[in-house]
Amino acid sequence: MPREIERKFLVDPAFARTLKSGTEISQGYLPVAGKSVVRARIYGSRGYLTLKGETRGMTRTEYEYEIPLDDAREIISSLCEGRVIEKTRYLVTVGKHEWEIDIFSGRNRGLVVAEIELADEQEAFERPTWVTQEVTHDPRYYNANLVETPFGDW
Amino acid sequence: MPREIERKFLVDPAFARTLKSGTEISQGYLPVAGKSVVRARIYGSRGYLTLKGETRGMTRTEYEYEIPLDDAREIISSLCEGRVIEKTRYLVTVGKHEWEIDIFSGRNRGLVVAEIELADEQEAFERPTWVTQEVTHDPRYYNANLVETPFGDW
Repeated sequence: MPREIERKFLVDPAFARTLKSGTEISQGYLPVAGKSVVRARIYGSRGYLTLKGETRGMTRTEYEYEIPLDDAREIISSLCEGRVIEKTRYLVTVGKHEWEIDIFSGRNRGLVVAEIELADEQEAFERPTWVTQEVTHDPRYYNANLVETPFGDW
Repeated sequence: MPREIERKFLVDPAFARTLKSGTEISQGYLPVAGKSVVRARIYGSRGYLTLKGETRGMTRTEYEYEIPLDDAREIISSLCEGRVIEKTRYLVTVGKHEWEIDIFSGRNRGLVVAEIELADEQEAFERPTWVTQEVTHDPRYYNANLVETPFGDW
């Protein structure tokens, strides 16, 4: 069963301003009734469809498939009812891990989040100087929640 | 934009009993809040993930992707909260069209439905002697509704 274990941190804005060569991401969320997430994503010039199960601790079941870019565009515009997040992603290697740093725009402008994916919940990693508060367990920072209650409204 | 235009009919049970060489289908529905449908399906030995938009008349936007069979099994068992339909599908050619005849089992046992896919809503087709009432516009017969309110409970 594919699972992702992630830890998530806020980022020093001064560091975020130094980042270059990001990839634009647009992702839409289908309105779902349960704890699952159904997401269509445009990542640069590629399209993806992702299902995620309920988050348990730092772990969540995830199924991701590449789909035609045009399908991703249409799913985001026609099935997601405006539940869309726009951000630019930067990749930064620290020690032996690659961090994903997302600078949000639109209604989440001002939010910068860094994520690291781990093999298991106990795996050690080097904490960069530019991360501040850990927000792994704060559901407000789930992208699926940022689409409902964007950072700009907090 | 991929769209499907379908007409749906009930089937004479005497005819249904003569059908041979069907393909077993198991399909689960993620709980969704809006009018969209997110479905994982096992069709024989293949897995699929399908998104469908809101039905408008006989027409509905549909996006379907083949996914690994094991993923389909897991999505049905872990993300669909028991919202599962089991049926056996038979293909019957009449004139220049292929009909899909679904014999339901489980909580929808007793229901037999035939569907034909058309290029547009005006396309002519030969109506077989073994179809009875048309149910295209009756939402009770949508598979996504049969999972909530199965035929056996009507």
